[in-house]
Amino acid sequence: MSATREMYPVQWQTDRVILIDQTKIPGEFGTVEILTSQDMAIAIKTMIVRGAPAIGVAAAFGLCLGAQEIQTVDRQEFLVQLEAIAVTLRATRPTAVNLFWAIDRMMQAAQSAPGDVANLRTILQQTAQQISDDDLATCKAIGDHGVTVLPSSPQKLRLLTHCNAGGLATAGYGTALGVVRSAWRDGRLERVYADETRPRLQGAKLTAWECVQEQIPVTVIADSMAAHCMQQGMIDAVVVGADRIAANGDAANKIGTYSVALVAKAHNIPFFVAAPLSTIDFKIKSGREIPIEERDPAEIFNIGHVRICPEGAEFYNPAFDVTPASLIAGIITEFGVFPPDQIEAELAHRAEGGKR
Amino acid sequence: MSATREMYPVQWQTDRVILIDQTKIPGEFGTVEILTSQDMAIAIKTMIVRGAPAIGVAAAFGLCLGAQEIQTVDRQEFLVQLEAIAVTLRATRPTAVNLFWAIDRMMQAAQSAPGDVANLRTILQQTAQQISDDDLATCKAIGDHGVTVLPSSPQKLRLLTHCNAGGLATAGYGTALGVVRSAWRDGRLERVYADETRPRLQGAKLTAWECVQEQIPVTVIADSMAAHCMQQGMIDAVVVGADRIAANGDAANKIGTYSVALVAKAHNIPFFVAAPLSTIDFKIKSGREIPIEERDPAEIFNIGHVRICPEGAEFYNPAFDVTPASLIAGIITEFGVFPPDQIEAELAHRAEGGKR
Repeated sequence: MSATREMYPVQWQTDRVILIDQTKIPGEFGTVEILTSQDMAIAIKTMIVRGAPAIGVAAAFGLCLGAQEIQTVDRQEFLVQLEAIAVTLRATRPTAVNLFWAIDRMMQAAQSAPGDVANLRTILQQTAQQISDDDLATCKAIGDHGVTVLPSSPQKLRLLTHCNAGGLATAGYGTALGVVRSAWRDGRLERVYADETRPRLQGAKLTAWECVQEQIPVTVIADSMAAHCMQQGMIDAVVVGADRIAANGDAANKIGTYSVALVAKAHNIPFFVAAPLSTIDFKIKSGREIPIEERDPAEIFNIGHVRICPEGAEFYNPAFDVTPASLIAGIITEFGVFPPDQIEAELAHRAEGGKR
Repeated sequence: MSATREMYPVQWQTDRVILIDQTKIPGEFGTVEILTSQDMAIAIKTMIVRGAPAIGVAAAFGLCLGAQEIQTVDRQEFLVQLEAIAVTLRATRPTAVNLFWAIDRMMQAAQSAPGDVANLRTILQQTAQQISDDDLATCKAIGDHGVTVLPSSPQKLRLLTHCNAGGLATAGYGTALGVVRSAWRDGRLERVYADETRPRLQGAKLTAWECVQEQIPVTVIADSMAAHCMQQGMIDAVVVGADRIAANGDAANKIGTYSVALVAKAHNIPFFVAAPLSTIDFKIKSGREIPIEERDPAEIFNIGHVRICPEGAEFYNPAFDVTPASLIAGIITEFGVFPPDQIEAELAHRAEGGKR
């Protein structure tokens, strides 16, 4: 298996979905076969698959599994049962909009498709594969656009990223790590600094692993060290992903992103968000309205299987935070890089079929 | 053993030092008997005892152990051998100035004391105990002064702290947690938010444990969540300790403190440093000159005994960072609270025996 091949976290195979088990990397590299829509919901909830675009792709294939499970030949009944499965998949994680976007796109494809149930299944399958293929192409475009807006000096950049917005978080190639990959390919990258990203350590585990696979030099730091590294002149730019972007350009991403954005601003280091346009949620005016998932406090008080905190202490474990548009130098999309306050207009323009 | 008693991390007993083993809390509460100066150096290096003032007290008692070890009855030879032990103790950790301050005070006491070697041993013993007693009184004064400068509203404050500047980090009571204890006693405290403080998790382990012992409500968060908590209006003020303060008021403290100071500034939340005047290093003009200890990268890539990061990744593990004076609302000392840029003048004034 080539290194690049290993970066495809969600793949359809005959009648099932093969997921890279992201809870095991880097200790083990293994895959999980998902046979039912219910198991896909569990895989998303337990973060066997994670990362906003990858969750979208996984949910789309989850609906394909659901379509296989539904026994009826009645088209209307099929759509009703499919919607029930969609409800289950939507309930897995609240913050990443790609989940809802992909499920909506799948449901619309089914509803608007002609013909019988067999044909609906075919359409669903094609749509899911298209979402996956599109995401990969989108990530490559994001990576290439990203390189064009990175600081022109020094020639070889030290880029900081938070969490994992890599191949593992998408259909492949990554959003923030897409920019990293393209910069590496173009000889513009010296090194990646990867925030370890407590509590689940996606930076220390997944981002570091992806970089090592591609032989990109990577230095893992604790999240709290980013400011110190910036003060020491070790960081030229920051690139992160996003789980949902409000119409005004505020961006929700993994907890700690807002902190990185603030400390980057304090050091005049440009902070970029790399995300497909599907991450933008038009219906949400500002970041304040984005629902923030709270996860199990055991993610904080257990390290491995050992409890590190005393009984009697309390915990707060928000999984995401919101970075205001004012801290974002640019949103790197598949169509180019836009100031956050122009992202809504750009998306409206695209929706009208406009070309630039 | 009363809860308060348990907070004395360094205690002399007949001919040995009893240290609370801070590497085991909160899983176990146990003590270690230190019988030799060499073992004390190891205990400081491996962080069985940690926290700037506690390291000073431990090093002072380490010299008492050394005084017991020296066989000569020749006064001059005794002082030469004592200095060799001081060199070993000084080499344990580079950043906290209290270590050097306490050793210097001990050496001066020995050098200026009259009489024979037996008398020097007595003087060293008295001086170490005085350093310990003074530190406890100092911490209580810091705590009480601190309460007076906390925001007057709301009545019950939510205080964020980073690392552990508690009873465990001092002779007892704590510096930053001294302020917390005094605020709790005075009914001014709603809750402590404790940054877990990667990589060694002193917040999650030690600060949470101390708060639980005193029944002070404590919420542990990952370091990267502090900015989000501030954005959500959950934090009224920040209080941290310091390992060394430069003459201009720049303060070195546990890695991540600078990050907290920056995000507090961005939210207009006052950020206080609580530390005895002995933490101020006159000889150092600005924070840039403070040596920053780098520790074993395994503190980052191992969680418990399990390696979480892939082979091939690199690591950076600075143990401290420097918060510039401009981010510090006040330095809380045993003599009152001073703007960072007045701390040098205040210390000079004290050194001249001035009273305010």
